[in-house]
Amino acid sequence: MPRKVDHQARRKQLADALMRLAATEGLEAVSLRHVAAEAGVSTGMVQHYFRTKDEMMTFALEMVMNNVEARATAAVTACGPGASPGHLVRTLLMQTLPLDETRRLEGHVLLAFLAYAAVKPAIAEGLRESASQMRAFLADQIRAAQATRGTPLRIDPADAATALLALADGLGMHLLGRHYSPDEAVAALDAHLAVLFGSTTSAE
Amino acid sequence: MPRKVDHQARRKQLADALMRLAATEGLEAVSLRHVAAEAGVSTGMVQHYFRTKDEMMTFALEMVMNNVEARATAAVTACGPGASPGHLVRTLLMQTLPLDETRRLEGHVLLAFLAYAAVKPAIAEGLRESASQMRAFLADQIRAAQATRGTPLRIDPADAATALLALADGLGMHLLGRHYSPDEAVAALDAHLAVLFGSTTSAE
Repeated sequence: MPRKVDHQARRKQLADALMRLAATEGLEAVSLRHVAAEAGVSTGMVQHYFRTKDEMMTFALEMVMNNVEARATAAVTACGPGASPGHLVRTLLMQTLPLDETRRLEGHVLLAFLAYAAVKPAIAEGLRESASQMRAFLADQIRAAQATRGTPLRIDPADAATALLALADGLGMHLLGRHYSPDEAVAALDAHLAVLFGSTTSAE
Repeated sequence: MPRKVDHQARRKQLADALMRLAATEGLEAVSLRHVAAEAGVSTGMVQHYFRTKDEMMTFALEMVMNNVEARATAAVTACGPGASPGHLVRTLLMQTLPLDETRRLEGHVLLAFLAYAAVKPAIAEGLRESASQMRAFLADQIRAAQATRGTPLRIDPADAATALLALADGLGMHLLGRHYSPDEAVAALDAHLAVLFGSTTSAE
């Protein structure tokens, strides 16, 4: 069914144009008209695929989240079955940090969405669902680490998972604002993981 | 010099209008024209005080940061000279979390600025400076706690401070996105502080 494929491909092309605009000029620059110009098509063409700016933004947000999730899943899977909880957690969180240009672009888009979502609550539903799954995974790994360690750290796994995801997202936000270098962010993450999972996390 | 006072008061009035717009409709809604309408004055009047949107936004950002800093300083000072490092840190960070409507509004504005700053790097300078001072304060408190504790946590104070501020800002961001309740955010912060400063932090 080439028709359906074309439809998805076209939507992706428009969402890519939206992301370039959001990352380089901010979400203010994002309108059906500007996305059309950026993608080199007519405004009518954009309106054929997305009726409103919200619809277009929701699609683009899902695309970014799918990219991040696919990359994180691949990295975690590549750890193999024998990987320690601390190593799995570090691998996952490193994929979410804006440490290279691709991920900085994604980070800018997510940040712009987050600000937009603050005033358009419905658009934040996907972000919430994704964060909730991440927290559940992190809590499972912290629980597993506590079960295998000789001297477990006395911290509730759910609280520790909430704190850990906040820490990683906060580091990402500070990196986007160029508060410090990627090396400093990774050092801070590793210092925290060493306390939570034991000191061999990053060396494994 | 009533003239100068009027000037500052007028700029503050316009910045307040800008903040209401940013919080309720997003930064997209912020333009000299919209701010004029929100404040009930003419566009020419706004242009008399702010030549560009960037200039107006920088002023409003400084205003929000001054409010947060003044509140945080007052809360920390109220702790008195005998307060423990852990108690000082908790008091400071609790002031930065969006736990009530005033602070949610400030948080929305800061988030909108952060997204805006990602594409207008100059505007982020104030945010970086403020975050840098916070990290230095947190590192000092962590160092003081390590010096007085019987069994110090083996973590570099600078790394721990970077992680702690990221954690607090991440919790704030997740609260703005309504990922979880204020109680859950505070529980996660307290669990982390208990590990970093000992378990009596919140009870002091």
